[in-house]
Amino acid sequence: MEFVEELRFFKEQLGTKERVEVPENTKNIVIAGMGGSGLAGKIFSELYSGLPVYLADGYELPEFVSDSTLVIAISYSGNTEETLTMAKDAKKKNAHLVTISSRGELSEQGDQRIKVPRSDLQPRSSTPYLLLPLLNGFNLISPAEVSNSYKLLDALDKDSKECESHANALVNESLIPVIYGSTPYRSVAYQWKIQFNETSKLLAYANSFPELNHNDTTAIATSYKKEDLYFFVFDSETKRINDRIRMTQEITGSKFNIVRPKGASRIEKMFYLLHYGSYVSYYAAKLRRVDPASVPLIEKLKKGLKDTPM
Amino acid sequence: MEFVEELRFFKEQLGTKERVEVPENTKNIVIAGMGGSGLAGKIFSELYSGLPVYLADGYELPEFVSDSTLVIAISYSGNTEETLTMAKDAKKKNAHLVTISSRGELSEQGDQRIKVPRSDLQPRSSTPYLLLPLLNGFNLISPAEVSNSYKLLDALDKDSKECESHANALVNESLIPVIYGSTPYRSVAYQWKIQFNETSKLLAYANSFPELNHNDTTAIATSYKKEDLYFFVFDSETKRINDRIRMTQEITGSKFNIVRPKGASRIEKMFYLLHYGSYVSYYAAKLRRVDPASVPLIEKLKKGLKDTPM
Repeated sequence: MEFVEELRFFKEQLGTKERVEVPENTKNIVIAGMGGSGLAGKIFSELYSGLPVYLADGYELPEFVSDSTLVIAISYSGNTEETLTMAKDAKKKNAHLVTISSRGELSEQGDQRIKVPRSDLQPRSSTPYLLLPLLNGFNLISPAEVSNSYKLLDALDKDSKECESHANALVNESLIPVIYGSTPYRSVAYQWKIQFNETSKLLAYANSFPELNHNDTTAIATSYKKEDLYFFVFDSETKRINDRIRMTQEITGSKFNIVRPKGASRIEKMFYLLHYGSYVSYYAAKLRRVDPASVPLIEKLKKGLKDTPM
Repeated sequence: MEFVEELRFFKEQLGTKERVEVPENTKNIVIAGMGGSGLAGKIFSELYSGLPVYLADGYELPEFVSDSTLVIAISYSGNTEETLTMAKDAKKKNAHLVTISSRGELSEQGDQRIKVPRSDLQPRSSTPYLLLPLLNGFNLISPAEVSNSYKLLDALDKDSKECESHANALVNESLIPVIYGSTPYRSVAYQWKIQFNETSKLLAYANSFPELNHNDTTAIATSYKKEDLYFFVFDSETKRINDRIRMTQEITGSKFNIVRPKGASRIEKMFYLLHYGSYVSYYAAKLRRVDPASVPLIEKLKKGLKDTPM
């Protein structure tokens, strides 16, 4: 499957009907996942805060995990070393374990096992498959939002010239993408970073307003190499954040390329922004003549780790 | 006060006896803080996971906050816009509010008010003042660790040549510092980034093992501008993480400058690493002939925001 086909298939995943079942006694939630597979948890934790949500992206679950914890372990391949270790830990601690995966060891574990119907995508192209069960389970998405998001993604599939022109500006000058998001799209900024890394094989850096006003601000004004940066800044719904964006741009003398998400709701805007970033990183890969799909070094690392006892 | 005096004063703050009082009915913890003042919460959340800890670094507290939530609002100046807004939200939601600040509006709020004895430091130089009340309150530090940490910091105050030589290598070649940490020192890697930004006025980037193996790895091998990076990688106590560090270095053909923390415990190593980074960024500022203390652009931004209605 060509990588651009994966992009076009993104919208089809919105039809996912699976839903995480939330046990009645749930007091807190832990989502275990790495990289592209960890993204679903990151997005969910920005959209839901009815219970404490803890994102685990190492080998260990936090101490507080108990029989009233819902642990959701997500790995598209089902074989991610860290996620498997954390899933085992969840059972040891008598937590309720839900797994989301396409195959592999993880798909054979869990009190609830959500199996993604296709295993031939890159993990970073499978976000809706991994995320919809969370959104459905916590009633965070309506049928209207599903169908509106589908239309927005479809329109981008048909016309992504704006994304291509960003990629041109970026690659022609050998610039480093810097992506600045804000709540509830911080995780989307992080996903752009992952996609520039893996799809375009480029360095990339993500941060968020208002936190970045407490650190990056000084650096982007006065550092050496600052002219190497290409800024993508997500427009916000919040006046105060847009005040900050405007002032930061002025004070630091930076050129911010503002990305305005289309869509009527947070969910729709989130899917639009995700897809927009996929296209920018895809065009950047084409311009750099690198294969947008494969990540041979990560595979090599996984192989090396497999051959080394833990 | 010269900035280097602030560094030497760091160890003196270890004598802080204040302790956050934890109400018996506490079910979860929210720590509200931005930038350098947010760091104490970040470090705490890596060392303690007995209850869910949520880090809030925007304008809003999560929905789950209730009368069984302990909210700890930290702002060295006591006047951080975001933190004040979150502290107000905490009272609205009947949470138990503890404030940690040196002065300002925040110091006049809270069921428990912890006042830091000096208000003339840079927030990023006041970490022990802000952190010790958390470590003491949750019994995460022993008197022996306090005295050993003091000795380790004092030794660095007397001999920081190694830090100076890193700064030389970095600034002489106009390189960008990239700091790779791992649990429980991810937040320390982030603090190094803040210090390079604010003290050295340099771009900087932090990430952590194993998460970075799912994104950065491809980029640091094949991106343009990769030769502009200078890697600081914290040695880990975990064999599996050190396997990853070694393999990542090999596979990507990068030169990792391994920083080996001194100290007998996690706490001691954490303080050592923090202080080590302060010196590297301090020497980098001196080499760049910038004032290590002041952050005029952040002040300008704060002023601009103050003059703009919310």
